[in-house]
Amino acid sequence: MDEDRKGRITIAVDLDEVTADTVSKRLLRYRADYGVDLSREDINGKQIRDAVPPERKEAVEACLDEPGFSRDIPIMPNAQRVLKWLSSRFDIFIATSAMDHPVSLYDRYLWLQEFLPFLTDRSYVFCGSKKILKADFLIDDNPRNLEMFSGTGILFTAHHNIYETHFIRVNGWNEIAAYFERLD
Amino acid sequence: MDEDRKGRITIAVDLDEVTADTVSKRLLRYRADYGVDLSREDINGKQIRDAVPPERKEAVEACLDEPGFSRDIPIMPNAQRVLKWLSSRFDIFIATSAMDHPVSLYDRYLWLQEFLPFLTDRSYVFCGSKKILKADFLIDDNPRNLEMFSGTGILFTAHHNIYETHFIRVNGWNEIAAYFERLD
Repeated sequence: MDEDRKGRITIAVDLDEVTADTVSKRLLRYRADYGVDLSREDINGKQIRDAVPPERKEAVEACLDEPGFSRDIPIMPNAQRVLKWLSSRFDIFIATSAMDHPVSLYDRYLWLQEFLPFLTDRSYVFCGSKKILKADFLIDDNPRNLEMFSGTGILFTAHHNIYETHFIRVNGWNEIAAYFERLD
Repeated sequence: MDEDRKGRITIAVDLDEVTADTVSKRLLRYRADYGVDLSREDINGKQIRDAVPPERKEAVEACLDEPGFSRDIPIMPNAQRVLKWLSSRFDIFIATSAMDHPVSLYDRYLWLQEFLPFLTDRSYVFCGSKKILKADFLIDDNPRNLEMFSGTGILFTAHHNIYETHFIRVNGWNEIAAYFERLD
């Protein structure tokens, strides 16, 4: 970080299902692999692995370990515009629990370079646990990550967390912009 | 982290030139590439790139970007034994500024799995900046990393930092053990 940035509010932002629309890619892949649609309604309130027939459970997880799978995930609507604005006012870190799929680490690096070119790689954090993050805010779709985080946790709505009630919730990037505009 | 680990002292530990003996591998490689030795004395007080003839400067850095280069670096003497002991009493994170050489990310994951099998990948942090680390201690050979860290910085002696006087200094892993035995 530059010296002049000391003291700025720091916001850590999750990658999958917050910045990257990983679910859209996974649903497309499911259709490609099995010839049937898995709808947003089918996965409401659960993980994808728990919404598919038991014999497909392993395969829907295994594709996350394929080289290249994480390289062309679409960016979440409005994420680019709002992150660019946020990064002009706050210190932004993109923090992803990437250790579950270590083959994807380099793909994720390249993805961040392509989709968020206004951030340098100084702001990337590929970690096993979000307990290690020192930031004022963490925006994440996983309640477990928010629980171990020491700052203010903000839950980003995803199919699997819709029944969670313990955190400040944002539904998409425009609501993130509205939340942080008040702090600006 | 497990629930019962809450409240434990957290120690973040750098990888290159602290846990991994990267310099030994780089000196071996230099001999292989140029047929001459670069000695420990030659690199005292400076970075390797500043100790070689100008026309070799680029190449001695470029090899760090080769796939596989980071995979077979030897572990630093006593690091394995001391880290195993530390991990039984403290929360340990291995935090490496790996973004300068993103091709090495997966190699570093595999290295950590091989050389530190008693740590899970929950404790790996591949980050662009050590400003993001929330830990009580950081053991690092790079004064710049210690400067941006918010906890207690401990400088691990390396060829390039021997003239640095601003930090608590440890000369090797046995001194790390002695330092933390007092806190145990």
